Amino acid sequence: MGNKVKILDQTRLPQAEVYLETDGYETVVSAIREMRVRGAPAIGVLGAYGLALGALKIQTQNHRMFHSELEKVRQALAATRPTARNLFGALDRVMQAAAADKTVEEIKAAIVAAAVQIHHDEADATCKLSEFGSELIKDGFTILTHCNTGTLATTGCGTALGCIKRAFEQGKKIKVMATETRPLLQGARLTAWELKQAGIPFNLITDSMAGYFMHLGRVNCVITGADRIAANGDTANKIGTYSLAVLAHENSLPFYIAAPTSTIDLSLKTGDSIPIEERDPEEVTHIQTMRIAPEGVSALNPSFDVTPNRYISAIITERGIVRAPYDANLK
Amino acid sequence: MGNKVKILDQTRLPQAEVYLETDGYETVVSAIREMRVRGAPAIGVLGAYGLALGALKIQTQNHRMFHSELEKVRQALAATRPTARNLFGALDRVMQAAAADKTVEEIKAAIVAAAVQIHHDEADATCKLSEFGSELIKDGFTILTHCNTGTLATTGCGTALGCIKRAFEQGKKIKVMATETRPLLQGARLTAWELKQAGIPFNLITDSMAGYFMHLGRVNCVITGADRIAANGDTANKIGTYSLAVLAHENSLPFYIAAPTSTIDLSLKTGDSIPIEERDPEEVTHIQTMRIAPEGVSALNPSFDVTPNRYISAIITERGIVRAPYDANLK
Repeated sequence: MGNKVKILDQTRLPQAEVYLETDGYETVVSAIREMRVRGAPAIGVLGAYGLALGALKIQTQNHRMFHSELEKVRQALAATRPTARNLFGALDRVMQAAAADKTVEEIKAAIVAAAVQIHHDEADATCKLSEFGSELIKDGFTILTHCNTGTLATTGCGTALGCIKRAFEQGKKIKVMATETRPLLQGARLTAWELKQAGIPFNLITDSMAGYFMHLGRVNCVITGADRIAANGDTANKIGTYSLAVLAHENSLPFYIAAPTSTIDLSLKTGDSIPIEERDPEEVTHIQTMRIAPEGVSALNPSFDVTPNRYISAIITERGIVRAPYDANLK
Repeated sequence: MGNKVKILDQTRLPQAEVYLETDGYETVVSAIREMRVRGAPAIGVLGAYGLALGALKIQTQNHRMFHSELEKVRQALAATRPTARNLFGALDRVMQAAAADKTVEEIKAAIVAAAVQIHHDEADATCKLSEFGSELIKDGFTILTHCNTGTLATTGCGTALGCIKRAFEQGKKIKVMATETRPLLQGARLTAWELKQAGIPFNLITDSMAGYFMHLGRVNCVITGADRIAANGDTANKIGTYSLAVLAHENSLPFYIAAPTSTIDLSLKTGDSIPIEERDPEEVTHIQTMRIAPEGVSALNPSFDVTPNRYISAIITERGIVRAPYDANLK
């Protein structure tokens, strides 16, 4: 990182590749909140770098004052997005590195090292889980996926999209059906962009078409990422995931979650206690800057939903593929 | 009608109220194809008027030549949209009126009268079925609906939205959850517009959120319209309806179809033989005129899906509420 972080603004893709470069954690806070960077592993990594940028700017050599300032930075970063586990895990890891009894300068160095290590670990985990997940994808499969879970979402190989890319690299003849993922269109904008770059054949569909194609027998399996996985396997992910899981179940299709273990939150027994972020209703009444609904219309905008474990055929992690009973097997 | 038909261009709503006025059936053909008018009952009515406009323009007094010209007009209208039953039913009714052994001028008058009668009958049927359907909506209910099924879609009281409006007029405290209905956003544009005009409280959601709210217990029933109902109750309707029906079933919620009997096609044993219209993929890669996916992306765009009868709790018609077994009860 040096003393700066360079961020690809994902809200501008695919129309423009715009990079933000910053040495201030405040820019990281707004980049996560405004979803310029999104995807649970990627915001974990960026959150860690944000904390490091904040630490480097603290002027005092006094331990107590340093930690007090650092805690303010941590809180600002933690308040950006409530659902994804990776952000909180990454912030905790950096704070642990900062807890050692050293000089402030040594602590700063330890914080930077921790952030770099988190980046490395998250990227590495997604490449390993992609290898495991690719085994579930057979030659000739059409895989349905939701939202964006590739390099953009993870800084590494990707989660769901990583498994798909790896299967393609192995020479399997596969096709992808990518949901557009309203409201913010991560599928139409980002997954389409990544699949096109990788040369993987795919079709874009609206979210409402997924069930139709499953029912017609034109889908072989569904794979999505995750933002937080409870101890019993209940999984929070992009809004619409629950519906895809129910539709896969009803059509006897395997439904897989792909996520690094940093997404698993063993402190939560079930998905019922995962906080669900509600975002600005204008994301629904508008598409990008264009109003689609009449003035004054009230919209709801939950960003995530929780898929109960009974609909999940397997959870793909960097340590292997986990199946039910998740209570026992996730540990 | 006089010798002209006035059409509210629904593709321009809610931004602008633009009317097309025409005495040529060709304008009717393009209005239906381009979905300036949509909704199964409304395109039935407009199809009938289109055939009447075509008939009035035929110059010959020769019976055989008149019928040959009329058949060309019928074929052009029949080729506009393949799925909705009402269009074909209405064209058949007008052609029957034209079959009588009279002078050409008398036949023209009979055609116009038949078109006006179809308009009256379709509007009347939706008002009657709205009364029946309103009985299924209890005080305090939140009703989820899809696409647009109000006055705009029917020329009358509406089908699904008609039942909702009638329940509201009866003084029941109800709320509506309206799906935006990608790709063409009939929910965000048209249903939101009609609900706002009626003063019925509602929230707009993306299609992917419907399952989440059902699972949370925030929906009491789902009502949609229909484009064609087979003899066994299998129902073609706007893409996404099948998914809503599966999600309602999984969450033990009633799922109702509201449609006039003119939507029922007893000639089809099951929904498997209902033709599903595939529309331009640009409706998916774009939202209105704005491109959302990268250049060169291939999209799929089925406009309708078929919901198997086992997911349908009841079919609301102008002759009463029909429940399973539909094979026996629809007749």
